[in-house]
Amino acid sequence: MNTVPPASPTPPPFPDASASDPASLGWMEGFPPPPDRTVGFADGGAWAFPRTRWSFCHMRELFPTANVSRGDAQVALLPRAERRDLDGVAFTTLDGREMTWGESLAANYTDGIVVLHRGVTVQERYFGALQPELAHTAMSVTKSFVGTLALMLADRRALDPQAAVTHYLPELVGTAYDGATLRQLLDMTIGVRYSEVYADPQADIWHYARAGGLLPRAPDYQGPPTLYAYLTTLAREGTHGEAFAYKTVNTEVLAWVVKRVTGQRLATLTSDLLWSRLGTEHDAHYAVDSVGTEAGGGGLNTTLRDLARFGEAMRQDGWFNGQQIVPERVVADIRRGADKARFAHGGYTTLPGWSYRNMWWVTHNAHGAYTARGIHGQVIWIDPKAEMVIARYASHPFAANAPQLDTTSLPAYEALGKHLLRNG
Amino acid sequence: MNTVPPASPTPPPFPDASASDPASLGWMEGFPPPPDRTVGFADGGAWAFPRTRWSFCHMRELFPTANVSRGDAQVALLPRAERRDLDGVAFTTLDGREMTWGESLAANYTDGIVVLHRGVTVQERYFGALQPELAHTAMSVTKSFVGTLALMLADRRALDPQAAVTHYLPELVGTAYDGATLRQLLDMTIGVRYSEVYADPQADIWHYARAGGLLPRAPDYQGPPTLYAYLTTLAREGTHGEAFAYKTVNTEVLAWVVKRVTGQRLATLTSDLLWSRLGTEHDAHYAVDSVGTEAGGGGLNTTLRDLARFGEAMRQDGWFNGQQIVPERVVADIRRGADKARFAHGGYTTLPGWSYRNMWWVTHNAHGAYTARGIHGQVIWIDPKAEMVIARYASHPFAANAPQLDTTSLPAYEALGKHLLRNG
Repeated sequence: MNTVPPASPTPPPFPDASASDPASLGWMEGFPPPPDRTVGFADGGAWAFPRTRWSFCHMRELFPTANVSRGDAQVALLPRAERRDLDGVAFTTLDGREMTWGESLAANYTDGIVVLHRGVTVQERYFGALQPELAHTAMSVTKSFVGTLALMLADRRALDPQAAVTHYLPELVGTAYDGATLRQLLDMTIGVRYSEVYADPQADIWHYARAGGLLPRAPDYQGPPTLYAYLTTLAREGTHGEAFAYKTVNTEVLAWVVKRVTGQRLATLTSDLLWSRLGTEHDAHYAVDSVGTEAGGGGLNTTLRDLARFGEAMRQDGWFNGQQIVPERVVADIRRGADKARFAHGGYTTLPGWSYRNMWWVTHNAHGAYTARGIHGQVIWIDPKAEMVIARYASHPFAANAPQLDTTSLPAYEALGKHLLRNG
Repeated sequence: MNTVPPASPTPPPFPDASASDPASLGWMEGFPPPPDRTVGFADGGAWAFPRTRWSFCHMRELFPTANVSRGDAQVALLPRAERRDLDGVAFTTLDGREMTWGESLAANYTDGIVVLHRGVTVQERYFGALQPELAHTAMSVTKSFVGTLALMLADRRALDPQAAVTHYLPELVGTAYDGATLRQLLDMTIGVRYSEVYADPQADIWHYARAGGLLPRAPDYQGPPTLYAYLTTLAREGTHGEAFAYKTVNTEVLAWVVKRVTGQRLATLTSDLLWSRLGTEHDAHYAVDSVGTEAGGGGLNTTLRDLARFGEAMRQDGWFNGQQIVPERVVADIRRGADKARFAHGGYTTLPGWSYRNMWWVTHNAHGAYTARGIHGQVIWIDPKAEMVIARYASHPFAANAPQLDTTSLPAYEALGKHLLRNG
């Protein structure tokens, strides 16, 4: 008789949200903090879970940053009417479990959540090390900011999405970007040899991060000294325009184009076109490399409420704080998305029928939702039909939205949108 | 016949304000900036004039910093009525030259100046790389913030100025600080072997800066890894309480005490007790070392207007933005100054009859002026009788107020005060 032993439940590889709570672990507490409670940059500790639950709210204390000014305008206060019914909203996770919205917050290692319904804050909560006045790393949510800025410049005819990348950046002649257009950059259909598998210590993303000063370097480091020096080393792999392939370096190239055509730094542009007009509460900031280049692929840090303000402006077709901040045409061009077949090449099993356009993820669901996504659970989720915006910062142990984060996030967002639509 | 050749005028050792203008020199312009226009941290360039005219407005882009939140309050707008008569105010420099207020701005390598009269902005100008929304390094003006915070805590009985330093910091038993009181710290009458002659490359100030991560380290650096590790190396020299001796490490020790008694970081305390209550426009920030310790001796960076707001609060005996921010008793204790004879030991020939109390410089002049001073011309000058506050950021090539900066600054401040008193 063939006896199969009962399946023993695999212990979770990481402590859960409660067990990894940075306050109870006492990171960086004490003057000075004890060595085993110190979150350091030089030893790489700042990037290791559960220390990330502290460091993601304190990135500027680990490396240099450039300021994104809020300008001198008054704050655009978000009206508040918190609703107690949201936590109980039930949904089925992508792997078939019953869960409530309230439970999903811990499941996703949420550091902070803001839900706006018709511009009113109906939920705002902070966990872990995040506080209303602290900036959290947005990581790849940054890309959606850069894509929006690029579209705004295209709308003003300051750049042409159909033009060649090397038209603006002759430095990239002979690299992977030869023959690519800005449109292909914007939609991430570039044929470039560059791997972004975070679990692989040899992945190119780590070379990029070391070049940008985001990771410590070995004493004998001989790699590219800056972000742009790194970009010029990238070689072609595959054909441009054929398949969606999500690669951070593409946004970095786009940010470079944006700077080249305006003569402005990314931090200045972000302030002038967005941050100073949104009535933000706080300055934001970008990580910078050793020559002041902002990490446009993932270096933005903002407070949660300010992230929500940007989301609300997008939801209102670019209108917020009494003015048209993002042109309506730009928002429409993002919302309509791109080719789903091309997107399917990306192999995102948790995102069936989606597309990617202008550095935004487009669900093509019944509510027309679209979203900005960061690798540890950072998100702006815009549900136009439900008139809902979700801004979330998180520090999930896995550097991947799929499967864990998506499993307990995407159906939660959809359920919350449906609930607010029904119970407005 | 003994012919003496005519004295040839010595060429100035540094280009003047116009010739060193960072915009015309093009620091950090271009994407990326060309190597000879790059202001780098690793090569020490950021600390070398004339690159300092750029770097002093961009310190956070060179090393890690901790945020000082402005909170979420509305901005306390400063009323504005600019006066054209100020630039022509004439005075005699300490070395006997005739000069006007307007001329003194360039003579002092001013990056920005705000003059408040009865709380109204009567002059606000920006030069060099400074802009209203950029934070400039306050350097030793930081000390006056830390001194004020310490006094505020003493006023609440959270610390006792008469207590021993080692009562709060047992880590300093056996160091220079054995036997010293907080009062001696506050008034800089500590007997500690520590030299702060910036022109001497072997001065202790540079060891302090390297320990704090403010200067690049040699690859084989074996010195103290953090600010507090450095403080524990300091040895006794001389007697406590006898003579004024201005040493940055004393403020660093005071900042440590302040954190120890409150359990709060300096950045948090500065925000909670001052920054969030002043109606500031922008967050401020402190430079931090590798374990998150804010440089309390000189690491604060603020916008110019926000610096002026703090000055205005002090001028109004602690009242600003509709509330008592600093207790009246604290301001009075600063204003009355300390022992002039003890101060005279410091050998400050440009400051006759002055004293130093609670990390502020007290002039004892006819207007009762007192001041916070940074080594490259940063200043808060409070003239109670004239109801005037001057906030200045500067990037003078010499790291010394005396003689150059004082020569063209102190009589200028006094003349401006007299002018406003007469022509209110």
